[in-house]
Amino acid sequence: MTLVTSDTVGRARELVTPTLQEMVGRLDPDSRLIVCYHFGWCDEQGRPANANGGKAIRPALALLGAEACGVDPQMALPGAAAVELVHNFSLVHDDLMDRDRRRRHRATVWALWGDAAAVLAGDAMLSLAHEVLLDCTSAHRAAAQTTVAVACRELVRGQVADIAFENRDDVSLAECLSMSRGKTAALIAASAVVGAQLAGAPPLVREALDTYGGHLGLAFQLVDDLLGIWGQPAVTGKPVYSDLRSRKKTLPVTWTVQNGGPLARELATWLADAAHAATATDDELRDVAELIERGGGRGWAHEQAHRCAALAIEAIERAGIPHGPAAQLHALAHNVVDRDA
Amino acid sequence: MTLVTSDTVGRARELVTPTLQEMVGRLDPDSRLIVCYHFGWCDEQGRPANANGGKAIRPALALLGAEACGVDPQMALPGAAAVELVHNFSLVHDDLMDRDRRRRHRATVWALWGDAAAVLAGDAMLSLAHEVLLDCTSAHRAAAQTTVAVACRELVRGQVADIAFENRDDVSLAECLSMSRGKTAALIAASAVVGAQLAGAPPLVREALDTYGGHLGLAFQLVDDLLGIWGQPAVTGKPVYSDLRSRKKTLPVTWTVQNGGPLARELATWLADAAHAATATDDELRDVAELIERGGGRGWAHEQAHRCAALAIEAIERAGIPHGPAAQLHALAHNVVDRDA
Repeated sequence: MTLVTSDTVGRARELVTPTLQEMVGRLDPDSRLIVCYHFGWCDEQGRPANANGGKAIRPALALLGAEACGVDPQMALPGAAAVELVHNFSLVHDDLMDRDRRRRHRATVWALWGDAAAVLAGDAMLSLAHEVLLDCTSAHRAAAQTTVAVACRELVRGQVADIAFENRDDVSLAECLSMSRGKTAALIAASAVVGAQLAGAPPLVREALDTYGGHLGLAFQLVDDLLGIWGQPAVTGKPVYSDLRSRKKTLPVTWTVQNGGPLARELATWLADAAHAATATDDELRDVAELIERGGGRGWAHEQAHRCAALAIEAIERAGIPHGPAAQLHALAHNVVDRDA
Repeated sequence: MTLVTSDTVGRARELVTPTLQEMVGRLDPDSRLIVCYHFGWCDEQGRPANANGGKAIRPALALLGAEACGVDPQMALPGAAAVELVHNFSLVHDDLMDRDRRRRHRATVWALWGDAAAVLAGDAMLSLAHEVLLDCTSAHRAAAQTTVAVACRELVRGQVADIAFENRDDVSLAECLSMSRGKTAALIAASAVVGAQLAGAPPLVREALDTYGGHLGLAFQLVDDLLGIWGQPAVTGKPVYSDLRSRKKTLPVTWTVQNGGPLARELATWLADAAHAATATDDELRDVAELIERGGGRGWAHEQAHRCAALAIEAIERAGIPHGPAAQLHALAHNVVDRDA
């Protein structure tokens, strides 16, 4: 990441952590340990740690949203904490549903403590997300709460589709884009909007941030899908080719299949064979990845991510946002598409 | 149930269902089908049904809370819908965690659609619970939202303890009571309070309803624990002795163990043998149930449930609540302890 962006997310992480820790402190001791572990604040025994707690892009967006309105980012802290709690609720539940054993280079919650603990830790974080906004004194709190609640519903819609698509062979690119909007873009857009709402943003700024967040979210998912196939496990913290093994209908895969031709048919045939995919060797998965690349899916997703980032930046430039936060939103968009984890 | 109570819960079910259906209509089609099935509105294919959707005690309490303040129960509808959504979110997640295959004489959500669907359907209902309160126009909405959010946190605490206790042999009665307060009484108390809060209840009435709901909730759990051992599967809709098989540290069990003597030691020894309990025959489980009865746990729980119901009624009688809703709250408490399912 460039200096400006690592500053932006580093500052967001620093600002939001005390609020997150205060909220997590309200939980029963068992749930508290699990949530603290998940956020990287302790190891699985509860011993203090400083592990990777994620990218803090969502809290950073929430704080920048307030600054885009010329308001102290402190005003946006409950919103920043809420979107980070919602994001992490969904990670803990998703890891369970996808049976992913590793995240951020560590064992996932269900892998360490079992299914019930993961269900309950996620439920607890979702509840805290609503609680932290209830504690906030902004006159515009209700609008922010609605933004977060609707984003939660969208998250569920996206995840339902993502799982359903694993066992379908006819997923269209339009369906896949709609799924990605629910699974990823909705909460990123909500993050960009929620801080501005708490700060009493004028409609034009709020709409610009919503548009920015929507495009940024789709760019984020496109890059995530690319990293899920071609990312370095040592950097991403996830097993190699895990998305291919579970036959996820990601954007580059779906584009390649839909784009037609003999390579598309070859890929579609491989995807349709569930038993085969589950037991495929790394070499075979590498061949499938190559198929997607030769079929154009890698190039398309890369180009599309850059196009989305450009559209996000364009929305900001039109909105008359102060130079400081505008430059940071700009840099954040660039870094989302250039990241390697 | 006596006429007055079946009227109370029947009316609540009738009043709250359109609001619930409107909220559930906001979900994606897959989640909507699952939630509609869970509420008994359709079968697993989506064909209209009129199955048992539960007892509607929580919505009934919410509506009576508004009437206790002399306000039209319509005012309490968003609160009634919110507590019913929270209750049902927790049922769907609990059935998954406890691996219970039957509820209300039908297959449970995870048993029909799998783990991921149950996690997501529960998440969706929890999100809708917050959304329905956000849509409400009461000037006292924030207090009601906080009541519901804190009850969710309590629910998680109770369920975490319930699961942890399954593998512990030294659970005290105090711990078991605290778990029951979280798992059951917190949301029943919130139900009694939330409608009154939306109606702008004076503090004395709110506190009386809170006390009423707390005692009623504990009575409810005591009876639930009794039915979990001695209930008729044909009436309860759950398998016989399921709580014993999973070595749940329910209140009658914990009381018997703590009460001491040779029967207590015999029960404790049986509970400590996990592998044995899992494969026990119905005959053996019947002997364990008899052990609890001879040890005094059944009688104690029965007496305690009646004591809690009496305390609940006492709280209402002191609060100067209008005769109509007071009589219904009174009857509801009697029926909670006299129910057979």
